[in-house]
Amino acid sequence: MASLFPTLRYGGDYNPEQWPREVWDEDVALMRGAGVTTATVGVFSWGLLEPSDGEYDFEWLDDIMDRLHEGGIRVILATATAAPPAWLVKAHPEMLPVDVNGTTLAFGSRQSYSPSSSAYLEHALRLVTKMAERYGSHPAVEAWHINNEYGCHVTRSYDAESAAAFRVWLEARYGTIEELNRVWGTAFWSQHYSSFDEVGVPSATPTFGNPGQNLDFDRFSSDALLRLHRAEHEVLRRITPDIPITTNFMGFFPDVDYWAWAPYVDFVTDDSYPDPADPDSYVVAAATRDLMRSLGGGKSWLLMEQAPSAVNWRNDNAPKAPGQHRGHTLQAIGRGSDGALHFQWRQSKAGAEKFHSAMVPHAGPDSRVHREVQALGAELASIEGVIGEGVDASVGLVFSWDAWWATRQYATPSRLDYVAEVLDWYRPFLDRGVGCDFVSVEATDEVLAQYRVIVLPSLVAVPEALLERLDAWVTAGGTLVVGRQSAILDENLHVRLGGYLGALRRTLGVRVEEFAPCAERAVTLDGSVEGHGVDWQEFVVVDDAEIVASFADGLTAGGAAVTRREQGTGSAWYVATRPDAQLAGAVAARALAETGVEGLIATPAPGVEAVERGSVRFIINHSGTEQTVTVAGEGLTLAAHDAVLVPRH
Amino acid sequence: MASLFPTLRYGGDYNPEQWPREVWDEDVALMRGAGVTTATVGVFSWGLLEPSDGEYDFEWLDDIMDRLHEGGIRVILATATAAPPAWLVKAHPEMLPVDVNGTTLAFGSRQSYSPSSSAYLEHALRLVTKMAERYGSHPAVEAWHINNEYGCHVTRSYDAESAAAFRVWLEARYGTIEELNRVWGTAFWSQHYSSFDEVGVPSATPTFGNPGQNLDFDRFSSDALLRLHRAEHEVLRRITPDIPITTNFMGFFPDVDYWAWAPYVDFVTDDSYPDPADPDSYVVAAATRDLMRSLGGGKSWLLMEQAPSAVNWRNDNAPKAPGQHRGHTLQAIGRGSDGALHFQWRQSKAGAEKFHSAMVPHAGPDSRVHREVQALGAELASIEGVIGEGVDASVGLVFSWDAWWATRQYATPSRLDYVAEVLDWYRPFLDRGVGCDFVSVEATDEVLAQYRVIVLPSLVAVPEALLERLDAWVTAGGTLVVGRQSAILDENLHVRLGGYLGALRRTLGVRVEEFAPCAERAVTLDGSVEGHGVDWQEFVVVDDAEIVASFADGLTAGGAAVTRREQGTGSAWYVATRPDAQLAGAVAARALAETGVEGLIATPAPGVEAVERGSVRFIINHSGTEQTVTVAGEGLTLAAHDAVLVPRH
Amino acid sequence: MASLFPTLRYGGDYNPEQWPREVWDEDVALMRGAGVTTATVGVFSWGLLEPSDGEYDFEWLDDIMDRLHEGGIRVILATATAAPPAWLVKAHPEMLPVDVNGTTLAFGSRQSYSPSSSAYLEHALRLVTKMAERYGSHPAVEAWHINNEYGCHVTRSYDAESAAAFRVWLEARYGTIEELNRVWGTAFWSQHYSSFDEVGVPSATPTFGNPGQNLDFDRFSSDALLRLHRAEHEVLRRITPDIPITTNFMGFFPDVDYWAWAPYVDFVTDDSYPDPADPDSYVVAAATRDLMRSLGGGKSWLLMEQAPSAVNWRNDNAPKAPGQHRGHTLQAIGRGSDGALHFQWRQSKAGAEKFHSAMVPHAGPDSRVHREVQALGAELASIEGVIGEGVDASVGLVFSWDAWWATRQYATPSRLDYVAEVLDWYRPFLDRGVGCDFVSVEATDEVLAQYRVIVLPSLVAVPEALLERLDAWVTAGGTLVVGRQSAILDENLHVRLGGYLGALRRTLGVRVEEFAPCAERAVTLDGSVEGHGVDWQEFVVVDDAEIVASFADGLTAGGAAVTRREQGTGSAWYVATRPDAQLAGAVAARALAETGVEGLIATPAPGVEAVERGSVRFIINHSGTEQTVTVAGEGLTLAAHDAVLVPRH
Repeated sequence: MASLFPTLRYGGDYNPEQWPREVWDEDVALMRGAGVTTATVGVFSWGLLEPSDGEYDFEWLDDIMDRLHEGGIRVILATATAAPPAWLVKAHPEMLPVDVNGTTLAFGSRQSYSPSSSAYLEHALRLVTKMAERYGSHPAVEAWHINNEYGCHVTRSYDAESAAAFRVWLEARYGTIEELNRVWGTAFWSQHYSSFDEVGVPSATPTFGNPGQNLDFDRFSSDALLRLHRAEHEVLRRITPDIPITTNFMGFFPDVDYWAWAPYVDFVTDDSYPDPADPDSYVVAAATRDLMRSLGGGKSWLLMEQAPSAVNWRNDNAPKAPGQHRGHTLQAIGRGSDGALHFQWRQSKAGAEKFHSAMVPHAGPDSRVHREVQALGAELASIEGVIGEGVDASVGLVFSWDAWWATRQYATPSRLDYVAEVLDWYRPFLDRGVGCDFVSVEATDEVLAQYRVIVLPSLVAVPEALLERLDAWVTAGGTLVVGRQSAILDENLHVRLGGYLGALRRTLGVRVEEFAPCAERAVTLDGSVEGHGVDWQEFVVVDDAEIVASFADGLTAGGAAVTRREQGTGSAWYVATRPDAQLAGAVAARALAETGVEGLIATPAPGVEAVERGSVRFIINHSGTEQTVTVAGEGLTLAAHDAVLVPRH
Repeated sequence: MASLFPTLRYGGDYNPEQWPREVWDEDVALMRGAGVTTATVGVFSWGLLEPSDGEYDFEWLDDIMDRLHEGGIRVILATATAAPPAWLVKAHPEMLPVDVNGTTLAFGSRQSYSPSSSAYLEHALRLVTKMAERYGSHPAVEAWHINNEYGCHVTRSYDAESAAAFRVWLEARYGTIEELNRVWGTAFWSQHYSSFDEVGVPSATPTFGNPGQNLDFDRFSSDALLRLHRAEHEVLRRITPDIPITTNFMGFFPDVDYWAWAPYVDFVTDDSYPDPADPDSYVVAAATRDLMRSLGGGKSWLLMEQAPSAVNWRNDNAPKAPGQHRGHTLQAIGRGSDGALHFQWRQSKAGAEKFHSAMVPHAGPDSRVHREVQALGAELASIEGVIGEGVDASVGLVFSWDAWWATRQYATPSRLDYVAEVLDWYRPFLDRGVGCDFVSVEATDEVLAQYRVIVLPSLVAVPEALLERLDAWVTAGGTLVVGRQSAILDENLHVRLGGYLGALRRTLGVRVEEFAPCAERAVTLDGSVEGHGVDWQEFVVVDDAEIVASFADGLTAGGAAVTRREQGTGSAWYVATRPDAQLAGAVAARALAETGVEGLIATPAPGVEAVERGSVRFIINHSGTEQTVTVAGEGLTLAAHDAVLVPRH
Repeated sequence: MASLFPTLRYGGDYNPEQWPREVWDEDVALMRGAGVTTATVGVFSWGLLEPSDGEYDFEWLDDIMDRLHEGGIRVILATATAAPPAWLVKAHPEMLPVDVNGTTLAFGSRQSYSPSSSAYLEHALRLVTKMAERYGSHPAVEAWHINNEYGCHVTRSYDAESAAAFRVWLEARYGTIEELNRVWGTAFWSQHYSSFDEVGVPSATPTFGNPGQNLDFDRFSSDALLRLHRAEHEVLRRITPDIPITTNFMGFFPDVDYWAWAPYVDFVTDDSYPDPADPDSYVVAAATRDLMRSLGGGKSWLLMEQAPSAVNWRNDNAPKAPGQHRGHTLQAIGRGSDGALHFQWRQSKAGAEKFHSAMVPHAGPDSRVHREVQALGAELASIEGVIGEGVDASVGLVFSWDAWWATRQYATPSRLDYVAEVLDWYRPFLDRGVGCDFVSVEATDEVLAQYRVIVLPSLVAVPEALLERLDAWVTAGGTLVVGRQSAILDENLHVRLGGYLGALRRTLGVRVEEFAPCAERAVTLDGSVEGHGVDWQEFVVVDDAEIVASFADGLTAGGAAVTRREQGTGSAWYVATRPDAQLAGAVAARALAETGVEGLIATPAPGVEAVERGSVRFIINHSGTEQTVTVAGEGLTLAAHDAVLVPRH
C-alpha cells in the first residue's frame, strides 16, 4: 500500500507560543539534529490567534510556519479549536459543560465547552475557516489536525443545550415516542413517556437510571463530538481539498465510538501513553496499535503522541528506562504506524503539563532523554520496506463500544472491566507472535472471511445479525471462541431469553441458565485444558457439545466450564468463566492448532513480542531483564528493553 | 390467633405490563402449576394507568385482574404511587428530590418525588381514589399494597417544600423557639434561633451540624413518609373498609421508624434479601423476621418480597445454592410469616432490574430455579398448624431508631454499626434456639413482663422512663444485659452527666468515667466468662457490683469489663466492651441459666437454627456443609442447606 | 525576655452560656482549686450577645466577667465573631460560603461566612466595636482573642463576592493583565486573558486547572482571612490600645500563611491536638511548638487550646494515657509557651463537641481527668525560671506555605506530603536534643547567621534570592542540607531550567536531569551513610561534589544519591531521595559533627525528648514504656509517660 508520507514521520507537538522567539531558532536547529520531520503546531493557540472576538493575530504563527519550512520541517497544523478562549466563555457562559450532578465546570483548564454548544461551534467554525484560508496553501502544511483528543475530559455534558440536542437525536432515531418506550422498556418503574418533551439527560437520579436512556446518552454523546469534528472537516475539505485531515484518537478510550468516527479521517492517528512502571503495559499498547490499524481498515496510521519518558498525570510518574521508549516506538511502527510523534517537542516551563517529559527536557539537549531522541530519529530514518505496509492478521477479536457501555451500566451480574477482558484474550496471541485485528460488530461476511480464528471477549451486547454471520463463518471452517457474558443482550440491552447467547446457542450447542459470580476467587477446572477461571462461573446446559473442562468446585461444580462443538468444517468454543493467563493460552493454542495457524514465537517469553510488517520483522523485549526466545525458528537473546529488526524471510 | 389468609400465601410481584398479552396466559398457567396463591400487581403502573394528567387507562389492568381471578390467583393490589410518571414531574419540577449538596435528582429511575411535595400527594391521592373505586369490589383483591418500600432511595430531601414542612413540624413539636433552642443546645457555636423562620434543613455545612437538628430531621423525614402513607390509608379505608391494607417494610432499614409506622398497617409485610454469598446472612434474616413479628405486636406477618436466587444490586450478585432459598423461606414461616412472596414472578427482559432473579427466570420454566419454585410451592401447601400462630419469646432486645440515628451522628466517641451490635447480642440466643422479640423504648411494664431476659445492645440514646421501668423489672426478677455505650444520651441527645447510664447507674451499680476506643484491636479479659472484647474499653467505676471480668490490657487494664449486680429477685449485667461471639455467648448463657430458660439447641452448630411455631418445629441448616445437632434432646443430621419440619412436642 | 503574663497561664475555653447560672459558681470554685489563672470567654457567643440585628444582651457576659474577676480568674476575651448568628445569615444568604463544586454551605454548624463577605465584615466590626467599648476597661481582661481558628473549615469560598475580591487582589498584585498572563503561563492550553474581568476563581474544571491561578487563589484566600483579622485588630487597637491581641493558630495548618499573619498578633497562640493513640504524635507536636516560637521571632507564645484527654473529631477518639497530657503540656512549656490552656473548661452536655474531653468531664470533678488537671495546675504554678524565656536553636529548617501549596497542585512528579517530609528532617534533631527553629524564605542574612545547620526539606518552590543568600551563608561556614525536590520551581511555579536547583546548582555542585518516582519501594544505597531512601530516585549529574552515597538499584542505579561539597568554610549536602529515619539521622549526625553542634541526647531513645528553656531542662518520655537515656552526660530512667524537670547547668 501507499503511505500519505514520503518517509516515516518523526517529531512532536510544538508550542512555540510558550517561548520567546530566541528559543525558536534553537528549536529548528535541534529538530534538524534529531531527525525531526514533522511538528504539530497550534493545538492550543485559539486564545492567542483570536485574542478577542473576531480579531486575529496570525503574525506569530506565520513566522513559525516560515521558520519551520525553511528548516525543512513539515507541519501538521491544528485547527486550534480544542480550548476556547476566556473571552468566548465569558460572553457565552451557557457553553460551559455541566456534570452529572449539575455542577457547571469553570474556565481555567481546557475543553471548556459542552459538545452541544451552538456558540462554541459557531466560533470554532469561524476560526477554522480563517485557518484554512490563511494556511491552506502554506508549503509547510502536511496535514490538518482537527481539535484535539475529542472528549478527553468532557464527553458527557448535562447542560440545557445538550438536553435539547439529545431530544432531537432521540426523535431522529426512534421516530415515535412509542418506539422509544419500547426500546427503553419504560413499562418498568413507571418510566413511560408521552412525548419527547418529557425526556431528559440521565443526570443523577434517586437510584439506577434507565439502561436504554444511559446507553443512548453514551451514543448521543459520542455522536455530539463527531458532529463537531464533521463540521470542521467539512470546512477544511471545502477550502483545502488536497490536504489530508485527521484528529487524534486515544486508544481504548471509553467514551467515543471510533468505529463510527474512523470514516471521517483520512488517516487514523493515536495518542499512546503506556505506563513505564507497569511491565504489562506493552500488551495494551500492542493491542492499541492493532486497533488503530483495524479502525482504518488495515491501512497504515500514525502515532501522533507519546511521551519520551514520564507523563505528569499519574499519581507517581515513572520515567522510561533506557531503551524502553525505543521499544514502544518500534512496536508502533511494526504494527502499522508510519512514524512516531510525541507530546511534546520542548518541555514547558509553566502550566499544568510542565512535568510531562518532552524531546527537549528541562535539563536541556545535553541529557539522557534528548540523546535517546536523537538516536531514535536516526534509526527511524534508516528503516526501509515498512512505510505504507499493512500487517497480516489471522485472528480477529470483536470489539464494540456498545458492549463496553453495556458493561458500565448499573445493576449487572458482576463488575466487569471490558478492556481487561479483551486483553485476556488478546494476550495469548500476542505472546505467540500471531497477528490480530479488531473487528466491528458490523463486520461483513467478507471481513470475517479474512480470519481463521475469531474471539468474542465478553461481548455482552451484540446485534443478532453478527451472531448469524458468525454461525455461517464457523460452518465454513472458522474457529470461534466465545468468552463469558457474551451475547446476553441485544443492541437495545434487552435480554436474550431462553438461555442467552441468541443464535450462538445453536453454534455452540449450549445454553446458560444462571450466572454465579464468585469475586476474588480462583475457579478450579477438570479437563483437557490447563489453567483456572477467575471470579465467575455459570450454570451451563450442554445440548450438543463436547465438554472440554468442567467446574471442579463452587456452586456449579460438575457443570461445563469449557465446551467445543464442531459445525461444518469449523468449530465453536465457549468459555464460561474469566480465564487466567494459562487457560486463555491453552484455549488459544488449541484454536490456533486446529486452524493450522503458526505464530512467530513457539514458546512465549515475558515481555517479548514479534511482529512482521512489510519486509521487516520486529522483535522487541519490553521487559527489564534479558530474554532468550526463538522467533520463526531462530534463537536470539535480547538485552533488557532491547529490540532487533531483521529482514523478513 | 387467626390469620388474614386462608392458607400460606405463595407468589410474587407480577408486572404483566412489561410483557405482551400472549405471555399472560402462560403466566397464569405456570402460577397454577407452581402453587401460587397470590400476585402483587400494579406497583409501578402509574405511568401506564394514567398516561397523561387525569386520563386513565384501566383496560389492561381489568384484563389481568380478571385473568388472575379466573385462574384462582388472588391479588394484592398496589396503589401504584411508588413512581410518579414523567408528565407529572415535567409539570411539577419542584417535586423532584434534592440531595444534601443541593443537587436535584432527575426523573429516570423511580421515587422521583420529595416526600413533602404537595403536587405529588395531590396526584397520588387522586389515583388512589380511582383505584379504590374501580377495584374495591373486584373479587380477586386480597389486600391493598400502598406505594412501595417507602424511602428506599429518597428519604431525606432538602428541597424548599421539605424545609417549609420541617419548620411546621418543628413548631408543632416545640411550640416555642426557646424550647427548640434548649433541646438543640444552640448556645453552642452561636446557633441560637430567634424564630422558626430562621431554621433550615441540615444541608451540607462547613463542619459538623447541630445534633438536634440532624436528629429531628431524621424524625421529620420518617414522619413525612408516614404522612404520605396515612393519607393513602385514609382514602382506602374510607372507600374499601373491608380490604386489609399494608405497605412493605425493608427489615432493618435505617431511615424510617417502623415502630411509629406499624399501627397504620393491618398486617406487617417485609422485603428481605439476605446475601447468598455471606454464610452469616441468615442471622440478620432471622432477626428481621423477629422484628417484623414484634412490630405487629406478635401477630403473624407476611414476607412480601424475596429473591428466588440472585439480586442485581450488589457488586457481585451470587445466586442461591440449591436448597438455600427453601431455608430462607422456611425461616420466615417459622418466625411468623403467613407465606412467602417474591420479587418477582417473571424476570424482566429490560430495565434496571433485568438481572434480578425471578420465579420464572430468563432461561424459562425448564430451569433449576423454576423447579425449586414449584417444589417449594407444593411444600408450603402441605404445612399445617402454623398459619396465624405466634412464636414464643423469652428474650427481648430493645431496638430504637432514635438510638440508631444517634450512632449516625458526627463526632461520636468512635464509629459504631448499630445493627451489627444488635446482632452481636441477638446471635447467641439464635444459636441456642431461644425465641427473641424486639422491644420498643416505649414498651410498657406489661410488655416488659413477658420476658425473662432483656438486652440493651448499644442503646446510645434512650428516654429515662424506660430505664426506670427496667429497674423495676429487674427488681421483679428479670435479668438485664446492658451493652457498651448504652444510655449515654437522653432522647434529645443530651449527655447524662455523672457517669452516663442514667437510672441504670443504680440498677447496674456502676458508672462510666471515660471511653477508650481501641479500633481494630482485640481486648483481653480476666474473669469467669470466656471471650474477648473488640475495639473498645471503658473506664468503669464500680460502686456496687460483682466484677465478672476485668480488662487485662490496654488503657483500662485492671478495670472492670463485665459486671453483675443482683437487685430484688433479678440481676443486671454491664458489658463495657464490644463482645466477640464467645463473650456474647458466655454472657447470654449465664443470663439464660440464671433465669431458667432453656433453648432448643444445647450446643450451637454453624448455620443451624431451630424455632417453633404453632404445632411445628423448624430446624434449618443454612450452612453449605452437613451439620449434626441436638434439638430439644433429639439428635439429627442435616445436609447442606437442608431443613426439616417436625411436630412440636 | 519579658513575658506578657506574670505567671504561667493555666485554664481553658469557658462557655458558661451553655450552663445555668448555678453551675457558674461551682465553676469558679473548681477553677481556683485547679490552679486556673485564665479563662477564654465568648468565642461562640455572637448569637446570644446580639440575638437580633443591632440588639445586644451583655448582661450575662457582664455577670460572668465579674464572677471570674472576683474569683481571681483573668479573661482572654473573644470578639465573638467566629460564628455569625442565624438572623444575619438569613438576612444575607449571599454571605454563605460556596464550595469548589458550587454547593452553598448552609447555616447550622459554624463559620457560616465567606471570607470575602462584606455583610459579615460589617456586622462583625460593629460587634467588635461594642465589645471593645464595653469590656476594654474591665479589670478581668487579660487579652483579646480575635475570632477563632481562622479558616478551620472555610478557607476557600467560590462565591461571587470572593470572585470579585480575587480580581481586585490580582489587579493589585499584577498591575496589568499581561503580567498575569506571563506569570500564570496562559499561553498554555489557550488560557490567555484579555482583561481581569475574564478571570474567575478556580472552581471545578474539566481537568487540571492553571497552577498560577490555583497558587494565587491559595494566597488570596489566606490574605482574605488576614484582612478580616486586621480589620478587627484595627478596631481593638484603636479603642483599647493597651490590651494585647491574639488569634489562635492551628499549628501546621495548610491553608493560612502564618508567616504573613504573625506580625498582626501581639503574642502567638496555638491550638494543638496530637493524637494520643499515635506514638509518633509528639514529634509533630514538638515541631509545632518550635514553629510557633519561630513565627514570633523567638518570643514566648501561648498554648491556647489542647484536650485534657480525647477529642471528638477522629473516627476513633482515644483518651490520653495517665501522664500523657502532662508530657504534652511540659513539651509546650519547654519549647516556649508561657502556659497551657485547654478546650474546654467544662465538657458540653449537648452540641457537636459534647464528646470532646474537658477539664471538668461529664463524670464530674471526682474523676481521673480532673484529678490530673488539678495536679498539673499545681505543678505549673511551681515552675520557675522559664516564663518569657527563649529556646536556643542551632538548626534552622526552611518552611514555606508557598512550597506547601506547590506540593498540593495537580500533575506533579509524584505525591508528596510536605509536612511529613519536613518532619523527616526535623526528627533526627529532636531525637538528639538539638534545638530547631523554622525559617521563612524571606529570612535575611542576619537571621540565617544564627544557625549552624540549615535544612531545606522538599522546598519545591522558592524565590531565587533565598538560594543566593544560602550560597553566601555556606561560604561563610554554614552546613546546608537540601532535600529532594527542592528548588525545582520559582515562586511563580515556573520551572528552573538546566537541571533545576537554581543558584544551588553552584552551591551543591550537582544538577538533576530527571525524576524517578518508585512509589512504595525502599531504595538501597551504597556509601558512607547508613539507611535507605523511600519512593523516589533522581537522575543526578555531579559537576563538582563528593558522592557520599550512590543508588544501588532502580532506574538510577550507580548514580549519585547523597552528595556533599565544600565551599568556603562551609559545606552543602544534597539528598536525592526521601530519607528513611536512619538515613536522615546519618546525614543529620554528619552535619552536626562537622559544625561542632552537640545535642543533649547522644543516643536517641524512642519517644524521649530533651529541651532547655531558661534555667530548666525538660526531659520527657512520651512513650508508653519505661525508657533509659543519657541527657547531657547524665543517665536517667523515666517511667512510661513520665517527665522530669532538672536545673539547667
